[in-house]
Amino acid sequence: MEEIRFKPIGVVHSQFATPADAPRQPRLSGDAAGMVEVFPEYIDGLKDLDGFSHIILLCYLHLVDGYSLDVTPAWDGQRRGLFSTRTPRRPNPIGLSIVRLTRIEGGTVHVTGIDMVDGTPLLDIKPYVPPFDDEDRPKYGWLEGRMRVRSEKCFKDDTAGAGGT
Amino acid sequence: MEEIRFKPIGVVHSQFATPADAPRQPRLSGDAAGMVEVFPEYIDGLKDLDGFSHIILLCYLHLVDGYSLDVTPAWDGQRRGLFSTRTPRRPNPIGLSIVRLTRIEGGTVHVTGIDMVDGTPLLDIKPYVPPFDDEDRPKYGWLEGRMRVRSEKCFKDDTAGAGGT
Repeated sequence: MEEIRFKPIGVVHSQFATPADAPRQPRLSGDAAGMVEVFPEYIDGLKDLDGFSHIILLCYLHLVDGYSLDVTPAWDGQRRGLFSTRTPRRPNPIGLSIVRLTRIEGGTVHVTGIDMVDGTPLLDIKPYVPPFDDEDRPKYGWLEGRMRVRSEKCFKDDTAGAGGT
Repeated sequence: MEEIRFKPIGVVHSQFATPADAPRQPRLSGDAAGMVEVFPEYIDGLKDLDGFSHIILLCYLHLVDGYSLDVTPAWDGQRRGLFSTRTPRRPNPIGLSIVRLTRIEGGTVHVTGIDMVDGTPLLDIKPYVPPFDDEDRPKYGWLEGRMRVRSEKCFKDDTAGAGGT
């Protein structure tokens, strides 16, 4: 299979200037507000999106340089296989962020709970649909018990942010 | 921004030979079993993944040709903005499938509940982590009330499958 080629459909504007500033997950960003700027040729595709409270953003994590198959997430300091983690350093660095949609003005999608660095290229927006995207009683391996639960399912990290996804 | 280039890290093997055979969502595929073949150079990254009951597969929907910003999903036959739907026909056709992991043998990840066509290139595997990926009380716009709920959150379509994502 040849290379797969994508083009950004927009760009994320956030308060996080560098990966070190960014939270490791959207849930760790609190109410960090941001704007997703959708390029003019795609704006008509935003129709009806404002009925959804949450949307899925797929982004190209453009600052990522390389990866290791063996990573040590800050959650527990153990070495883990790359694909059992949400590290941004992946063979294909695609970030998956579920964020809260606040409003849409033209090509500007206002959201809260973002974890992306300012300037991150946007690949896709999908509506978040619980019947598709929620699983009953899942097990989540080595991550179970690693997170402290706060109110409203806001999960806090005990260690420094890593800009992960 | 230039083109973004990705390389497949594996390939999906499924019973669905064409998009017309494939269910519109993993939840509509019942227990359709499949195998995700991860290429040899990435196998070490699968360590620890077997502790997760569900995984997120990001795939390149290689058979998609073009898109329209104005789509008419089979759910209700109304015209909707592309980004408020999960149609596979998107500017960057990346499929997001949450599937159940049954077992891993070397580079072969056995899963159920897949919706991908046989031969679909794999871009990424992420662990499904409810504290990151589940949202409380979300609203889901025009899709609310369009699906009949079956047991175990299995949602059935009333109309012909469209190979959607």
